[in-house]
Amino acid sequence: MVNVAIIGATGYGGVELIRLLRSHPHVSLSHLTSETYAGQRVSEVYPHLAGVDLPLEKLDPQAAVGCDFALLAVPAGLAMEIVPGLLEAGSRVVDVSPDFRLRDASVYARWYNRPHLCPELLTEVAFGVPEWNREAIRSARLVAVPGCYTTAALLALRPLVRDGLIETDEIIADGKTGLSGAGRTSLTLPYHFPEADEDAAAYSVGGHRHLPEMVQELASLAGSEVRLAFTPHLVPMSRGILLTIYARPKAGAEAGELRDCLARGYEKEPFVHVLPEGKWPHTKWAAGTNNCFLAVGLDESTGRAILVSALDNLGKGYAGQMVQCLNLMAGFEEPTGISVPAAYP
Amino acid sequence: MVNVAIIGATGYGGVELIRLLRSHPHVSLSHLTSETYAGQRVSEVYPHLAGVDLPLEKLDPQAAVGCDFALLAVPAGLAMEIVPGLLEAGSRVVDVSPDFRLRDASVYARWYNRPHLCPELLTEVAFGVPEWNREAIRSARLVAVPGCYTTAALLALRPLVRDGLIETDEIIADGKTGLSGAGRTSLTLPYHFPEADEDAAAYSVGGHRHLPEMVQELASLAGSEVRLAFTPHLVPMSRGILLTIYARPKAGAEAGELRDCLARGYEKEPFVHVLPEGKWPHTKWAAGTNNCFLAVGLDESTGRAILVSALDNLGKGYAGQMVQCLNLMAGFEEPTGISVPAAYP
Amino acid sequence: MVNVAIIGATGYGGVELIRLLRSHPHVSLSHLTSETYAGQRVSEVYPHLAGVDLPLEKLDPQAAVGCDFALLAVPAGLAMEIVPGLLEAGSRVVDVSPDFRLRDASVYARWYNRPHLCPELLTEVAFGVPEWNREAIRSARLVAVPGCYTTAALLALRPLVRDGLIETDEIIADGKTGLSGAGRTSLTLPYHFPEADEDAAAYSVGGHRHLPEMVQELASLAGSEVRLAFTPHLVPMSRGILLTIYARPKAGAEAGELRDCLARGYEKEPFVHVLPEGKWPHTKWAAGTNNCFLAVGLDESTGRAILVSALDNLGKGYAGQMVQCLNLMAGFEEPTGISVPAAYP
Amino acid sequence: MVNVAIIGATGYGGVELIRLLRSHPHVSLSHLTSETYAGQRVSEVYPHLAGVDLPLEKLDPQAAVGCDFALLAVPAGLAMEIVPGLLEAGSRVVDVSPDFRLRDASVYARWYNRPHLCPELLTEVAFGVPEWNREAIRSARLVAVPGCYTTAALLALRPLVRDGLIETDEIIADGKTGLSGAGRTSLTLPYHFPEADEDAAAYSVGGHRHLPEMVQELASLAGSEVRLAFTPHLVPMSRGILLTIYARPKAGAEAGELRDCLARGYEKEPFVHVLPEGKWPHTKWAAGTNNCFLAVGLDESTGRAILVSALDNLGKGYAGQMVQCLNLMAGFEEPTGISVPAAYP
Repeated sequence: MVNVAIIGATGYGGVELIRLLRSHPHVSLSHLTSETYAGQRVSEVYPHLAGVDLPLEKLDPQAAVGCDFALLAVPAGLAMEIVPGLLEAGSRVVDVSPDFRLRDASVYARWYNRPHLCPELLTEVAFGVPEWNREAIRSARLVAVPGCYTTAALLALRPLVRDGLIETDEIIADGKTGLSGAGRTSLTLPYHFPEADEDAAAYSVGGHRHLPEMVQELASLAGSEVRLAFTPHLVPMSRGILLTIYARPKAGAEAGELRDCLARGYEKEPFVHVLPEGKWPHTKWAAGTNNCFLAVGLDESTGRAILVSALDNLGKGYAGQMVQCLNLMAGFEEPTGISVPAAYP
Repeated sequence: MVNVAIIGATGYGGVELIRLLRSHPHVSLSHLTSETYAGQRVSEVYPHLAGVDLPLEKLDPQAAVGCDFALLAVPAGLAMEIVPGLLEAGSRVVDVSPDFRLRDASVYARWYNRPHLCPELLTEVAFGVPEWNREAIRSARLVAVPGCYTTAALLALRPLVRDGLIETDEIIADGKTGLSGAGRTSLTLPYHFPEADEDAAAYSVGGHRHLPEMVQELASLAGSEVRLAFTPHLVPMSRGILLTIYARPKAGAEAGELRDCLARGYEKEPFVHVLPEGKWPHTKWAAGTNNCFLAVGLDESTGRAILVSALDNLGKGYAGQMVQCLNLMAGFEEPTGISVPAAYP
Repeated sequence: MVNVAIIGATGYGGVELIRLLRSHPHVSLSHLTSETYAGQRVSEVYPHLAGVDLPLEKLDPQAAVGCDFALLAVPAGLAMEIVPGLLEAGSRVVDVSPDFRLRDASVYARWYNRPHLCPELLTEVAFGVPEWNREAIRSARLVAVPGCYTTAALLALRPLVRDGLIETDEIIADGKTGLSGAGRTSLTLPYHFPEADEDAAAYSVGGHRHLPEMVQELASLAGSEVRLAFTPHLVPMSRGILLTIYARPKAGAEAGELRDCLARGYEKEPFVHVLPEGKWPHTKWAAGTNNCFLAVGLDESTGRAILVSALDNLGKGYAGQMVQCLNLMAGFEEPTGISVPAAYP
Repeated sequence: MVNVAIIGATGYGGVELIRLLRSHPHVSLSHLTSETYAGQRVSEVYPHLAGVDLPLEKLDPQAAVGCDFALLAVPAGLAMEIVPGLLEAGSRVVDVSPDFRLRDASVYARWYNRPHLCPELLTEVAFGVPEWNREAIRSARLVAVPGCYTTAALLALRPLVRDGLIETDEIIADGKTGLSGAGRTSLTLPYHFPEADEDAAAYSVGGHRHLPEMVQELASLAGSEVRLAFTPHLVPMSRGILLTIYARPKAGAEAGELRDCLARGYEKEPFVHVLPEGKWPHTKWAAGTNNCFLAVGLDESTGRAILVSALDNLGKGYAGQMVQCLNLMAGFEEPTGISVPAAYP
């Protein structure tokens, strides 16, 4: 049994953490913070969590002292303010903000328009995707879970890059996402129901902040520069990311070879599912879960490999993966609390 | 540990049973039938159930022999054909079809246009709503879980009728439902996405088949005739039932009294949540769960009590409630396997 | 050719007015106001209005002088500030706010928590539903178009009340609406896509502001007190209102008689369509149009008449009806510019 | 005034033609065919077309004789059976099936698995996109309107290919479409509301039938081979196509140059709208209209041009474009009957 604090417990990611951890057999939720709803109880703010009568408190780094683990679901910039104190007090941290994902503080500064406050911590961060970083996560004090798009992209691309089956000089990634990814705190026009409903549109063209994470991880694996065009789109649903990736296979690589590479790479993984030829993933399959579905084929006309990756932006793309990391860090069975499949439909 | 068969495992209700029971710590799924997909494995038909490699078989009553429990998720008319054999072979049965919900075989015949095949069983059926029928369910051989609308209506109305707080000579129930209630097998035009999307409409006006169940249960409780106008509506979402009920309070009954009656009636119930004054339930709160949310107020102009009941038609309105009954019958803790709250949003 | 000003041109209602009037053969849009977007052109704010390069201006009552007609699509409270000046300057006004809908200034004060600023104008207002107020609208200086729910309710109920076919001491009206009715200016949580999507819920229970308008019009027609319970619900779509009304028929009134009354009442009306027995309206049929669809039947169990009324809250419930009034006032053919049926699906 | 027949009047495309042509000032609808609903009147099948009491008849090529124009909205394979007779009888034809879009009968045979029945007609077909084929359409006996995706792709790509601003050896086109594109006649599981709602998925990967049309038109323009990867996706909305295209600019071509090329190419076009830098199109802007919105930028990382094209698959992608062609053929003003902008939201 471990004590866990959720810092930022009432955003969509935070509330998903509550949902998962309330049923986790080895976790005790000892401290939940919310700037907006401090002073209320969870079930007052989110009536669907009837029975979760835990109090919400203002963020007070002192109050988190004594927690074995702190899960941070706070905006960029805030995490790096509070993580040093948490670590010092002996808590281990799983952070899902971008503050600790980028190893190069100057890249962070460029994309987030602010200097990094504790660049010295960047060297010890474990990148929070268990599928290829299990050992580092197990022993880490600080784990940085990547963005939802980044997880979707890396799960699809990493085995192929590692095995040298695709070129990395020009990868095209076209994303489609549900609207919960934008969170709940700041209400903006594009997420107003009458605007978003029955609509599809590109956004952040050429400048989405998940791009440098993708590039960083792939470049370090490929040992060479990676060029990647990433265009996300909003489509009218609440949860789900579908990422369609167009990559040039290395000379001679067949579709079957690519598929085998993925299948082999994930054959022991409980959460990553590689589909057989001719089947393509649906985001709905992953809704509310920690699962990711992958498929690959070759386009006849251009010879490009077409990869499709589907996951839940709040599941494997956020809270599910955080709990998966927590399980590793705490020495629990990895799927504990995150193994129920999607409610369908 | 008990062996459970799911008869009709690949409709939306059946697949929800698989989802819930796969994670149930005391259940072994020993036999899954599907007329449409016999010969395939569950995960081939429903890829979101990756890892559930159980085979689907044609319905063969012999094959269910040896199962401790058979959960039936089959259409009206089929259940009564196979239940007698299952009982004889020693299985206990939870049925969600209408075949065993109506105590009077002639009412069944009138609403379903066919004679009942085993009216002798009707006397021993336990009506499958644990909140007021716990003891009977525990020891029953055969439990009939009511329809989704019926569960929503009875959870709201029953305490008030029992305590004599509302008149039963004219109750008006206006339902709004998501589209998964119509199932998956027969594709019809009103459920075609472009028709249903961005649309709201009434259906089965004055003749929905859940009406006689509601009337039967309320009349037996009230000891007098019950008159109820029930009008269901389709609204563009997948899961969820919202039932708005207009009932005349008995002379002098105040809103607070009605609310107290509900609150008292469900104070020990883990799945029924009565909201405080001024809060009204959302179907989304119940999505994917066995929860029901209730609220009540008085309309100033007409003096009518306004009751709102929200649940998931595939959760408390179907599979969740079936598992809740199974837990009672098998002597497990009642919330086992059905206690995770809704994924929100 | 008449000059028309739209005051409040960039809310959802205002932009619908632009859409309709741009194609109107006898209207010249001479003045468009927007507090939020003054200084920009229409097509910059709403790119779907490509080619509509009219400038948006701050509201300046002087600037509207010289307009033959001013169409007001502004919030409650603002209309009564500017209407006197517009009338004085010689413009005729169609207002869609509640400021001039209630004939009794004290009722207005009670429901809107502010005194009426020009109660002397209330006696000359024409209630803006052409189907029964055509002559008054034709010659009016000031027309007050009722709320979307009110129009839906009155179109269904008025002929039956007038002909004495239903009792008015207890009418129950259950509304389902899309989310565009809440407008675009103030973004609130219930209209945030992830909250509203896949959800149904009641709101403003017992206290929706369209109630007094409904009661006023019916009571004046019935010559007696009217009691009406009105409960609106949000359902996940952008446009559309479906209103299901439960009314007690006068002794002996049959379903056919009720239907005939409606059919007769609207047989010459181009925008109100009474459906034959067994057909019930869909909101989608009315999307983007000035149409209203009506149906009626009798509930066997309670004897209540069930009336269903469907329209577009921004069409017949707002901008369509405003243009219909404008056409009458200006002496144009009534359907000019509002006769194209719905785009389906 | 011309007489127009709609062959296949009750599919989604056919009913959109009825909607548009009913309000067309110079068109008389003289003959509407429907295999499914022959014998009924339009308003019985589609109540939203209240007042359109035209009869639906079985397809009888003789009956179309005497029509000045026949608009064909029938499935692939049927058009080529009836077009020769229509032409012989003196009607001019606008066809939206694939039967006459491909100039090479052997390409047709390969993609549609049947021989072409009247390859001799293929040489006289005018490709039905007025923006670059106006003169040919004006005088044509037979116009073949391309597929919805094809129109979206060609409107974006054609000016750039013509001016030699992009390479054609590897173009990547990622499409997102609403579900009305699949029509109404055959109900299949992927279009069942509970399956499609809250879901995004790729389909027809590497083999969508609009691909050869795109390639044919671009190759003929470029005078060289064109390689194009086209991957369509279903997203949960009824109408709309968003196509995101990744093309390599010719050496040295800047974003501004590409945008100028598009802007120049369409500056006199009433239906094609090129957005300024930093704005990207939304499908909702085009809903129910004949408009197409285009935008272009350069991706910094890969140097690819990113083009986004948005239109309504039933508007500019189908019925709107057919009416636009009809207007040209009949000598009417080109925007007649198709100039009302989108209802928003």
